[in-house]
Order: sequence, then structure tokens, then C-alpha cells
Amino acid sequence: MNYLQMSKEELLSEKNVLEAKYSEYKGEGLCLNMARGKPSAEQLAVSKPMLDVVNSDTECTVDGIDCLNYGVLDGIPSVKKMFADILDVTPDEVFVGGNSSLNLMFDTISCFMTTGISGCEPWIKQGGVKFLCPVPGYDRHFGITEYYGIEMINVPMTSEGPDMDMVEKLVSEDEKIKGIWCVPKYSNPTGVTFSDETVRRFARLKPAAPDFRIMWDNAYAIHDVTDNGDKLLSLMDECKKNGNEDLPIMFASTSKITFPGAGVAVFACSENNMKVLKKRYNFQTIGFDKINMLRHALYLKDSNGLIEYMKKHKAMLAPKFECVLSYLDSEVKDTGTAKWETPNGGYFVSVDVMDGTAKEVVRLCSEAGVVLTGAGATYPYGKDPKDSNIRIAPSFPSVEELEKAMQIFCVCVKLAAVNKLIA
Amino acid sequence: MNYLQMSKEELLSEKNVLEAKYSEYKGEGLCLNMARGKPSAEQLAVSKPMLDVVNSDTECTVDGIDCLNYGVLDGIPSVKKMFADILDVTPDEVFVGGNSSLNLMFDTISCFMTTGISGCEPWIKQGGVKFLCPVPGYDRHFGITEYYGIEMINVPMTSEGPDMDMVEKLVSEDEKIKGIWCVPKYSNPTGVTFSDETVRRFARLKPAAPDFRIMWDNAYAIHDVTDNGDKLLSLMDECKKNGNEDLPIMFASTSKITFPGAGVAVFACSENNMKVLKKRYNFQTIGFDKINMLRHALYLKDSNGLIEYMKKHKAMLAPKFECVLSYLDSEVKDTGTAKWETPNGGYFVSVDVMDGTAKEVVRLCSEAGVVLTGAGATYPYGKDPKDSNIRIAPSFPSVEELEKAMQIFCVCVKLAAVNKLIA
Repeated sequence: MNYLQMSKEELLSEKNVLEAKYSEYKGEGLCLNMARGKPSAEQLAVSKPMLDVVNSDTECTVDGIDCLNYGVLDGIPSVKKMFADILDVTPDEVFVGGNSSLNLMFDTISCFMTTGISGCEPWIKQGGVKFLCPVPGYDRHFGITEYYGIEMINVPMTSEGPDMDMVEKLVSEDEKIKGIWCVPKYSNPTGVTFSDETVRRFARLKPAAPDFRIMWDNAYAIHDVTDNGDKLLSLMDECKKNGNEDLPIMFASTSKITFPGAGVAVFACSENNMKVLKKRYNFQTIGFDKINMLRHALYLKDSNGLIEYMKKHKAMLAPKFECVLSYLDSEVKDTGTAKWETPNGGYFVSVDVMDGTAKEVVRLCSEAGVVLTGAGATYPYGKDPKDSNIRIAPSFPSVEELEKAMQIFCVCVKLAAVNKLIA
Repeated sequence: MNYLQMSKEELLSEKNVLEAKYSEYKGEGLCLNMARGKPSAEQLAVSKPMLDVVNSDTECTVDGIDCLNYGVLDGIPSVKKMFADILDVTPDEVFVGGNSSLNLMFDTISCFMTTGISGCEPWIKQGGVKFLCPVPGYDRHFGITEYYGIEMINVPMTSEGPDMDMVEKLVSEDEKIKGIWCVPKYSNPTGVTFSDETVRRFARLKPAAPDFRIMWDNAYAIHDVTDNGDKLLSLMDECKKNGNEDLPIMFASTSKITFPGAGVAVFACSENNMKVLKKRYNFQTIGFDKINMLRHALYLKDSNGLIEYMKKHKAMLAPKFECVLSYLDSEVKDTGTAKWETPNGGYFVSVDVMDGTAKEVVRLCSEAGVVLTGAGATYPYGKDPKDSNIRIAPSFPSVEELEKAMQIFCVCVKLAAVNKLIA
């Protein structure tokens, strides 16, 4: 049943079958969405009791800090500790911000654009600065570097993380390369967790630019969807072994733990980096929302509480990932028209459809009422050179909706492939 | 009793009396703080019931927006409307951010540094840009412009607002002047509200720089401390009459309404400015904390609710302002050693002590256990050219503490003056 081995007649006959199915689906007037990595209503309901733990009777002065009033730039100690444990760093290396880790990443890039680090000129003064972008990757990362006019260079993702031969070569040769975007665990969208060797190679990097930084977005640090969760080696520990502790700036948040609309976000980094970033934040704000930090601290307790808590999400997400993967396995695998990783966590299944058909698959799906992330979105400038990557986000729809959506998706993948092969 | 008319013998005799009193106070080992404009514990307690209005039973989907999940960059409609009414603009002109209006101001300056507006190059590319700073003013405003290396030019505050002759002249002549910091109502620290004529002159400005902007920090928009609250003319309305609606960027927050540590902040501006700022925010974040917005909307209802609510704060703040002013009147006025405004609102009493003695007064107070805002803090670069301005922040201490602190303050003002006159 491999399409690549079919004769033209076989393909035409297959095309008829697929078109009949497609028309049928189209007639159903569906409206299904697998576009964004949003938690479902069911997941959000799990965290609603957090809204009760801080109320008018709550003592809001903790560790001598009145969370209701001004003060404390870098967050309350209990939340710093909780995330220090998750990110494998010390509490002093953690800064707690508002509800969005993306905002902390934006602030970081914004800071380095206009403030020199490691004895260098600000990036904006140096001009022509570049960033490495493992692809496929997260569109909003690429958006930040594009906004600041930073040239982006694609680096292929492998099943162990970014192609480290390429990363090492580029970084050591070109002092205009100032950073790399990474989602080291359950990478967005491939679901790959960087191998120990990849982390070690990151920690041993010898960049030509002293102001090179690794933007380590650990968005899915504890977000397993199977019982065999991946383990990520501690980048900060490895960097310290190599005297490279100024390389990483790490990020995390509770957006996909408690509420995307009202979580807390943190970054973590070395003392040198913290000094530069805190100087900026000290002018930027008097402090972030400490009551919401307190709410998280009281509800989640500590990093163990956090990890335990994530089992509830796993229970809800696991069947959805299983659904997506089982349709791909049963409907697409034998046709040889697509490839994908099987992630143990995160929020996505990344599917590489036949080269040159991703946009067409997204279009076909859309016309049949299934919204997908735009083809190309997982690449800098929205340009997927092979037009083959599609990111499936299974968290938001119900399993029933997903089943329908995946039936349609599989038909579209095959239909686009058949049309391409016949053309 | 006017010190300036005393003989040397009379001054020496007065000095002995003051030094005796000062030694007595010093011996009491006090620890009083009139340094920062922080609400008191009593004020914060008033807002604690707000922590109950969003709980696990609350329907968090409002106007079709699930406040728990991702989405909605510019805030929920009810909060946009509430602040539109307070700032005399339309809801479309309002953007709701996180808990800190200072952060929104920082973001705005940061945006204009690297993004061109009104057809101009980004400020950082133009180089040598300048800002007008009405003095005395708010140290954290000056901190933002200093952080970005923007040259600051002092403009004296009058009882009607900034010296508009000077503002008009400078702004029309120098295209490197890109903005001005304003606290138009109950100005920090003078307590002055800009007169209608001042607002009209701002609205009629014809800046040499097309990218000149008025940073209109309406931090105390509804923060009366007397029953004769000031009225501020609508800058946006006046600007629209003059085709100048791109001039102002306005700011406000609930930091001194609900909680400094967990409020909501907004900015408001024209469609053109909103387009530039929203473009940036769209890369910066998926959205700010919508649950905290919802909490504010449910608790404060609307702008009328907000204004009514502020009466509770007025009741607590009025006796504190009365205390400060009555001590100044009874202890200092006749000596001719200081001048001050009598504000109808805001968080400060600004005292101009005898030229060249502000630092000494702050030092004397500090040694007697009374912490004041550092002398010079109300000026760009921390440099008060006359060394005369001191900002008193009466909100945080109790009235009893204030009485003691003001007794000490008045003695220190007079002692520093006597020493200066004798020297």
C-alpha cells in the first residue's frame, strides 16, 4: 500500500476513494481545531481550586514580604525554590516574573539588543547579528528574533536535538551568531528531548562571540504524556563544569500547569547574566504580581507537589496523543506519505508529510472544517523550505473531536500525496 | 520669627533650642518611614474582599473569552471600558497589561527606541535624543530615560503644571526632544494638577520632532484626599480638536486602588500609536493575566464603582495629609525656611526647604530614625541643582507615627536652615 510503489492506475483509483471520503467529511460542516497548544477546558478545571487558596482571610505576608504591597523585584522565595528544583539551578539563579515566559524571553532579547553583555557592544550597535533556529521550532520564538531584525539560520532537528555538528561549527566560526532558540524537553513541535550528549555539547560550546547565549525554553519540563517520561540532563550543571555558566538563560512557566491566562513565569541564569537583567528589570517595574505567586506557592507547595500535580494533566492528555498516533499508524504509515516522532510529553505531534504538500494538506483540512497551525509556521519567516512540516496540537479538542479531525487529516495527507504523485 | 530676619544672636539661641529638641528625639531610637508612596496596611485591608470574587465556582468565561486560557492581547472588555471612562478615551484606545503601569511605560520607551514612529527612524538610530522632565518629578520616570541613555532636560513645575512657555519653545525648536514625562493630576511629588490652559497648550504643541510623545502618567486620576478634588481636562479630547491625537500615551493602574503587588495597569493612545505598540506586544506575549482583570471587573464593577471605592482611601489618607500640613503650618511656616503646595490628592507633599539644605535635612532625619526619600531623587540623575526639594510620603505610617516623624522633620528643616544662616 506504499504510494511510492503504486502504478499510476492504482494511484488514480486510490484518489477516487480518498476524494469520495473527503467529500463526505466536507459535507458534515465540521468545525474542529488542532492549531494551538492550548490546555482543554477539562485541564483548566483541575486547577480551579487554586483560585480559593488566597482569599480575604489569607495571611498575605510571607517570609516578611507583604505580597499585597510594593516590593521584591525577583519574586517570593517559595516560588523561586520550586522552580529552582525544576530547572536544576539554585534559588538565587531564579527570577519570577509575570504570567508569560514568552514576555521574559522577549525582555531578555530586548535587553541584549540595547545593553552590552560579556564586555561586548549591544547587539543593535554591533549590527547584522544572527540567531540559530532549530527547525521545525516554535513560531513565537522566531517572531521575537524577527521583530528585532535578527537574521535567523535554520538548523535541522534530529531525534537527539539540534544537529550539534552544525551548531558547533557555526557558533565557533561566526561571531555575529549571538544565540540559539531551544525547547530542550519535548521540543515544540517534534516532541524530542535533547540527549545527554546534546546537552553536554551545548555546555562545551566555544562560541566566537563572547555574548552568545542559549535561550533554553524549558516550557515542558514536567509535561509527560506517557509513563516513560524523558529525563533532561541539567544544562546549568554541565555548563558550570566547563566554566560556561554564562551561556544559558532558562525559562519556564505554569501556563500549562495551572492557567495559561494567569500563571507565573520564571527565568534562571548565572550571576553575571542576572546582574544585567536585574538592572533592566529594576528600571522596568517595582515588582511582578506577588499575590499570584503566593497563590501558586500555597496550591502547588513545592517541586514535588508540582510533579505530582502533572499526573492529572497526563491522564487527560495521554488518550489524545494515543488517538493522534494511532490514526497516523493505522491510516498513514503504510502509505509512506508521512513521518513523525512519538513523543513522551509536550503538547505536539510533528508530522512531516510528503515534500511540497504541507500547505495543500492544511488547505484541504481547512476546507473540511479542521483548523491546523499554518504550514510553514514552524520555520523562521514562516518558510518551510520543503513545505512538509505540520504541527498537530491535540490538547484542546475532546478525544471524540480528535478522532474525527484525525480521520480527515489522514485522508488529506494521502490525498495531497496522491495528487502530487500523479501530477 | 522669620529666620531670615533674625540677628546672629537670635539664630544661635534658636539653634540651641532646636539642638536640644533634636537630641531628645534622637535618644528615642525611633524607626519611622516617609520615603515611598506605599498604601498602608489599613488601605490594603479594604481591598482584601476582592480576593474572594474569583473562586473555584466562578464562571471565568466572560464576553466569550475564557479568562483561564490563552488569548486576548489587549485585555477583557469590562476593564477596557472602566479605564476608558477614567482616562476620558474610548475603550478601543485602551490596552490592559500586567500589574505595573511603570512596566508599560518602560515597554513604550523601549519600543520607540528600536521602532520608528510617525515615519521617523527609531530613537536609538537617530542618536542624541532628549526628554523633558518637569521637576521635581517621579524618580522612576527619570530612571527609564536614564537607562536608555536619553538626555534629560529639567523644566520647572509651577502651580499650573510644567512651565509651558519653556516646553513650547524647546519642543518647537529641537527635533531631538522626543518626549516629556507628566503626572498631570496630583503630580508626583508637588500634588499640582495641570490647569485647563496647561492641558490645552499640551494639546496644541507643534513639536519639531514628528515622533514627539507626551508620556501622560495619570497615576492619581481618582485619588482625592480632600472633598474638593481637582478636575483634569481630557487631554485626548483636546488633542483630537487639534489633530494631535498621536501626541499622548496615557497610563493608569489600580496599584493604589486595589493592591500595589497585584493590580492591573493600562495604557491608552491613538489608533496609530496603538498599532505600533500592539505590533510589539503581539511578539512580546500571548496576553496578560486575564483572571486578575476579571477579579477587578467583578469587584469594582465600572468607573463609577471605582470612583465610589476611592472614598474609602480618601477617608484614611485625609488625616495623614492634614497631619503633615498642619505641622508644616504650625512649626515651619513662620520661620520662612520652607515652601510647599497643599494638594487635594495624590500621595505626596513636596517641601522646598532652604536652598542647599535638603541633603542635610534628610541626613538629620535619618540619624533621628526618620527615613525620607533621598534628597535629589525627584530630579533627573538625582541632582537637585538647588538642593532644596524633599518629598514627603505620608500614606504608609499611622497618624501617630506621622506626628512624631513630622515633629522631627520640622526640627530638622529649621536646624539645617539655622546652621546654613550662621555659617
